[in-house]
Amino acid sequence: MGLELTPSSFLRIGQLSNVDLNEDVHELETELPRQRPNEIPHNEKLLSLKYESLDYDNSENQLFLEEERRINHTAFRTVEIKRWVICAMIGILTGLVACFIDIVVENLAGLKYRVVKGNIDKFTEKGGLSFSLLLWATLNASVVMVGSVIVAFIEPVAAGSGIPQIKCYLNGVKIPHVVRLKTLVIKVCGVILSVVGGLAVGKEGPMIHSGAVIAAGISQGRSTSLKRDFKIFEYFRRDTEKRDFVSAGAAAGVSAAFGAPVGGVLFSLEEGASFWNQFLTWRIFFASMISTFTLNSVLSVYHGNAWDLSSPGLINFGRFDNEKMGYTIQEIPIFIFMGVVGGILGALFNALNYWLTMFRIRYIHRPCLQVVEAMLVAAVTATVGFVMIYCSRDCQPIQGSTVAYPLQLFCADGEYNSMATAFFNTPEKSVVNLFHDAPGSYNPMTLGMFTLMYFFLACWTYGLTVSAGVFIPSLLIGAAWGRLFGISLSYLTKGPIWADPGKYALMGAAAQLGGIVRMTLSLTVIMMEATGNVTYGFPIMLVLMTAKIVGDYFVEGLYDMHIQLQSVPFLHWEAPVTSHSLTAREVMSAPVTCLRRIERVGTVVDILSDTSSNHNGFPVVESNPGTTQVAGLRGLILRSQLIVLLKHKVFVERANLSLVQRRLKLKDFRDAYPRFPPIQSIHVSQDERECMIDLSEFMNPSPYTVPQEASLPRVFKLFRALGLRHLVVVNNRNEVVGMVTRKDLARYRLGKEGLEELSLAQT
Amino acid sequence: MGLELTPSSFLRIGQLSNVDLNEDVHELETELPRQRPNEIPHNEKLLSLKYESLDYDNSENQLFLEEERRINHTAFRTVEIKRWVICAMIGILTGLVACFIDIVVENLAGLKYRVVKGNIDKFTEKGGLSFSLLLWATLNASVVMVGSVIVAFIEPVAAGSGIPQIKCYLNGVKIPHVVRLKTLVIKVCGVILSVVGGLAVGKEGPMIHSGAVIAAGISQGRSTSLKRDFKIFEYFRRDTEKRDFVSAGAAAGVSAAFGAPVGGVLFSLEEGASFWNQFLTWRIFFASMISTFTLNSVLSVYHGNAWDLSSPGLINFGRFDNEKMGYTIQEIPIFIFMGVVGGILGALFNALNYWLTMFRIRYIHRPCLQVVEAMLVAAVTATVGFVMIYCSRDCQPIQGSTVAYPLQLFCADGEYNSMATAFFNTPEKSVVNLFHDAPGSYNPMTLGMFTLMYFFLACWTYGLTVSAGVFIPSLLIGAAWGRLFGISLSYLTKGPIWADPGKYALMGAAAQLGGIVRMTLSLTVIMMEATGNVTYGFPIMLVLMTAKIVGDYFVEGLYDMHIQLQSVPFLHWEAPVTSHSLTAREVMSAPVTCLRRIERVGTVVDILSDTSSNHNGFPVVESNPGTTQVAGLRGLILRSQLIVLLKHKVFVERANLSLVQRRLKLKDFRDAYPRFPPIQSIHVSQDERECMIDLSEFMNPSPYTVPQEASLPRVFKLFRALGLRHLVVVNNRNEVVGMVTRKDLARYRLGKEGLEELSLAQT
Repeated sequence: MGLELTPSSFLRIGQLSNVDLNEDVHELETELPRQRPNEIPHNEKLLSLKYESLDYDNSENQLFLEEERRINHTAFRTVEIKRWVICAMIGILTGLVACFIDIVVENLAGLKYRVVKGNIDKFTEKGGLSFSLLLWATLNASVVMVGSVIVAFIEPVAAGSGIPQIKCYLNGVKIPHVVRLKTLVIKVCGVILSVVGGLAVGKEGPMIHSGAVIAAGISQGRSTSLKRDFKIFEYFRRDTEKRDFVSAGAAAGVSAAFGAPVGGVLFSLEEGASFWNQFLTWRIFFASMISTFTLNSVLSVYHGNAWDLSSPGLINFGRFDNEKMGYTIQEIPIFIFMGVVGGILGALFNALNYWLTMFRIRYIHRPCLQVVEAMLVAAVTATVGFVMIYCSRDCQPIQGSTVAYPLQLFCADGEYNSMATAFFNTPEKSVVNLFHDAPGSYNPMTLGMFTLMYFFLACWTYGLTVSAGVFIPSLLIGAAWGRLFGISLSYLTKGPIWADPGKYALMGAAAQLGGIVRMTLSLTVIMMEATGNVTYGFPIMLVLMTAKIVGDYFVEGLYDMHIQLQSVPFLHWEAPVTSHSLTAREVMSAPVTCLRRIERVGTVVDILSDTSSNHNGFPVVESNPGTTQVAGLRGLILRSQLIVLLKHKVFVERANLSLVQRRLKLKDFRDAYPRFPPIQSIHVSQDERECMIDLSEFMNPSPYTVPQEASLPRVFKLFRALGLRHLVVVNNRNEVVGMVTRKDLARYRLGKEGLEELSLAQT
Repeated sequence: MGLELTPSSFLRIGQLSNVDLNEDVHELETELPRQRPNEIPHNEKLLSLKYESLDYDNSENQLFLEEERRINHTAFRTVEIKRWVICAMIGILTGLVACFIDIVVENLAGLKYRVVKGNIDKFTEKGGLSFSLLLWATLNASVVMVGSVIVAFIEPVAAGSGIPQIKCYLNGVKIPHVVRLKTLVIKVCGVILSVVGGLAVGKEGPMIHSGAVIAAGISQGRSTSLKRDFKIFEYFRRDTEKRDFVSAGAAAGVSAAFGAPVGGVLFSLEEGASFWNQFLTWRIFFASMISTFTLNSVLSVYHGNAWDLSSPGLINFGRFDNEKMGYTIQEIPIFIFMGVVGGILGALFNALNYWLTMFRIRYIHRPCLQVVEAMLVAAVTATVGFVMIYCSRDCQPIQGSTVAYPLQLFCADGEYNSMATAFFNTPEKSVVNLFHDAPGSYNPMTLGMFTLMYFFLACWTYGLTVSAGVFIPSLLIGAAWGRLFGISLSYLTKGPIWADPGKYALMGAAAQLGGIVRMTLSLTVIMMEATGNVTYGFPIMLVLMTAKIVGDYFVEGLYDMHIQLQSVPFLHWEAPVTSHSLTAREVMSAPVTCLRRIERVGTVVDILSDTSSNHNGFPVVESNPGTTQVAGLRGLILRSQLIVLLKHKVFVERANLSLVQRRLKLKDFRDAYPRFPPIQSIHVSQDERECMIDLSEFMNPSPYTVPQEASLPRVFKLFRALGLRHLVVVNNRNEVVGMVTRKDLARYRLGKEGLEELSLAQT
């Protein structure tokens, strides 16, 4: 090791060729609308949010390899069995959480509706229904207040459905606190309170987030919120393993929410898996199955009919019989038309929500304001519901109907107010009623008014600081106008074919949901499984596809919109189609901060402390003796690894370079995962600064590289397929010229006028 | 271009360091049981089979990039729409082919059974049933003879179910003729004749192969068998696009066979997709949906009840009602036990079939012998069936039963022979009967004898030179012993819970099929969709998982076994777990034949004509002026590209190096795809041999590389995730030291005693 190390500061590769690089950039500017002012007026707060990129490529250093080599067949089997056990536990716990939410919501909401119903029944006779309105609105607002307070003040990341956050996590960007136990607790309580508070929300979306948190917690065998480390499952303490389990958790959540185990697997794959692995998929499926099975068993016991297994999910669409509700080929164009309507309405919903969100970002960012807004929405929801019910003259005979809280109001005895079945009920029950109530249960006016009101309420509600999902409100809006559509059709044609408007309610629900969230394969399968009928797969697929195509023409999907509003460096499936003209040299970040194989401790500390760059991965290079000019790439080392090295003081004095350094174990790295201490917490004395640190053993000796001439799609494919965080760009002589990170790739997207660049948040 | 080119023969990199390399190999030999004599006694014929590796990484050269850059947003949309149109066509055609098979089989088999039944009825009264046996056996044998003759003499690759071949194709290895139109025709006719001939086979497996052929044909817009080029879809003429469409075709085939569109998608993904792409998956799903919908519509019209859409697949398991046939939690251990039984019986089946296949490879390789064997099996099947029916005394009342061809034989009037429902019927109908016939329709003796006989018949049949699938026979064996198991349970416990043996028949069928083919997720979903009941998903999954674990303990799955018997370099999902100690340097092939950027035509021709190496990809290197020593890697060029260059004579005389070469278009390469002419067909004169060829424009300037220190799992992951055919191994100075191909990676597998090496066929 006779290297002559100069006491220079750290090397910046690319400086030598900076002129060339800049020229390229200038050339590019003439071709591309580079750094176009983004249409979205980002405020400072959003862009300063810190996300953490995840690294799904095992950083393969000597320590890791040594451990892997020790793993023989038997040890591997043990690890594999542990994986299955964890997946089973994820499934069971997710199912139990879903049960808990369901039972609590059912009881509390039942209590509320009984109280309000008693009150209304009382005041209908003697007049003074405004008291009932006041009672209803106050009850809702106070329940929602509690739900909003815990979210706004304790854990803001628990707001919303959590699906955008989980999408980001599976994509490789971690939003802080997103998989903490505290988040789970707030989420579960929050969703119960929002639904009981009568908001236009569902409890299904948050199950996906809950499942993910459960998975992250169990698989790591410890909890930061509880400050407990159970010393189990230590093998899985790295990004790639954790991601796999989080996929399983998300799938288990979908499965518990909709009774759709296959849909859950497909959801996870659609959002997360860049690299399909048979064993992983099989485990995800196992977790999903266990989850719906647990929910089904417990709810069956709870409902008293112990073994009939009739509640596979939080929402069940009920049975769609082929005989009664089959469709014919002639109806397919009608379904496609409904898809178009769903796409347009979905785009409208998203556009309105977009402006609302911008307004919220600007003006409603203090927690107390957020709570007030939530309470306002709750009160307005109750008021709108009440006024609608009050004004409705749609009375239906109570006999033979399955309505849970029949409000008589001004109807004759033995009849109930039909508008109340839609408003005076949990949204899940309303959806099922719209699907399955006999033809004639609703008159068109009721459905039309309900659609209109609920559309705006749901749009206003999404994005409030409460934890709640948008699936069920979307389904409800769609089911209402779908049913209306079905009724209109039978008015128009008077044919027996249109007899059952429930079928159209289902298609409308699919169209509206598809128009809002733009999920494709997984949503089709979820809807198929929730209806329990394979035959409906084809029309549902057509409807969803049409809704997506039409909706995409106007505006992005709701989740993608919110992800983009937060400037997350989200990687899509493929590079933009027109990006073949860009090469790695043009997209990469340069100059790159490099380290030498044997580096001075002071230099390492300085680099890590440099807050202006805050890089995460550092190429390790061989410097030619006697010059400061860099030579070929030798490896890659991560900030976290360097910090662990400094913390354990794995370095020797310069004079004793041949001395054996202190041995570190892989365990030392694992114990620190994922919250490595900041560099500021590590004290390095002045003497220690002059010591030398040998990185060869700890660096990844064969990082993935890409030549600088490679085109953007090629770089993108490599990055995405392998789940990388850093990709070193080298020249013909294997010298480092730059580094491609997630942000470099995520900023390109295809706009209306060609390739655009986004501004993205810090990672 | 003042390079001083020496007239040396082509360069062989690695010779300089051969000593080092060999030493490594020697070291390795002491650790690993390298080149262990494979247990399978390969004969010469098998190892000399030629397969073609496919390249799923776009070879990104200047021409390709230029074309991609020309693709703007509108052009891209056109391509995208074409993709959807092709998928729709794949779905429709696959559905129609399935209809054709179904209708022809139904009619011919109906005719046969009516003739034989009439004959039996006649001779039962007046004695002389041996004539009936003779008639039955002769009919079967002659039909099977025709089916076997066309396969054996016209297109041997149409034999069997084709699933192993499609698995190989999706994995990246093309067996010659596997996606030709001729193969499709022979396959369709063959499968009709096999089923009508009464063999213990199904028509479902071959649908997967048929769908794949249809997809390959349509997507390329031409047919080699027909010698027609429709000049459409030329954009899709490369391996990666073709593979995507073949995935869709296979999925459409599964979908048509079992009415399982989601199962089809999962099958394709499980077998083929190493890189999950949302849009691709969505298209595959579209093709699947169209396929089952087409089949459903046409069959509904054919069966007279036009729009009821009651036949989603070639086989429908019939309705499993929750009320009548629900399961309870207590039954789950019993289902798991059935999984164990299925695993053991499946392993037995595979082991017997393995020995049979070895016997066939050794002694029955002449086509006429193969035809004779097929006829023998057909005759024996008829005889066994006849004897079983003859000896059976299991009579059931004919009233209320749905049996298609009730054989009275020696039963009383108004009764039929129960054994005949199993043997005297197409296997699909027998399976459905076993699932749904009322309790008591079969006595245990009948089921036991049937299981035993059918097990050996099916085992003997699989691997015959007829085109037929193993799915249905497996289901039938399993349904038989499953029903027997269910009946025994109710004898043992006399509880009402065991009332319906049909449920156990279903679980037995799943267990047996899982034990034989070892498919996991996709099979679960296929079974779920075929039963049309989501609730059964959980027990089916448990049964399949148990069967796989138990079966894998003894012997591989049937398809994998046959793939391995043919020594195909098949890449599994992950590198063997214990292979971390191997590095790229140890697995790579070296020395590598390299080309220089500007190369002598004679050298190129010599390299391509060298039959001993027959390499397919050649690294292009920069040779240092004045030496023969090689320098850094500059690109990679394929044999096919070189051949097109030579064919179009894209070279200049040595004196005129500055002259502009003839321009080639990407179209010239596409037109030659995929059957590039052999080098022998290209005449290069002695003068031309002295010309120079500039490869820079046609090579891929940024091939994927891997450092020689990278571990095998890392190399494997890169290779598999990107679907590569060649991966260049470089040293620290970016100089070529070796090349990793599919065969280098596929030969390692995890045996009972650690890492093993296989001997593989030529590619």
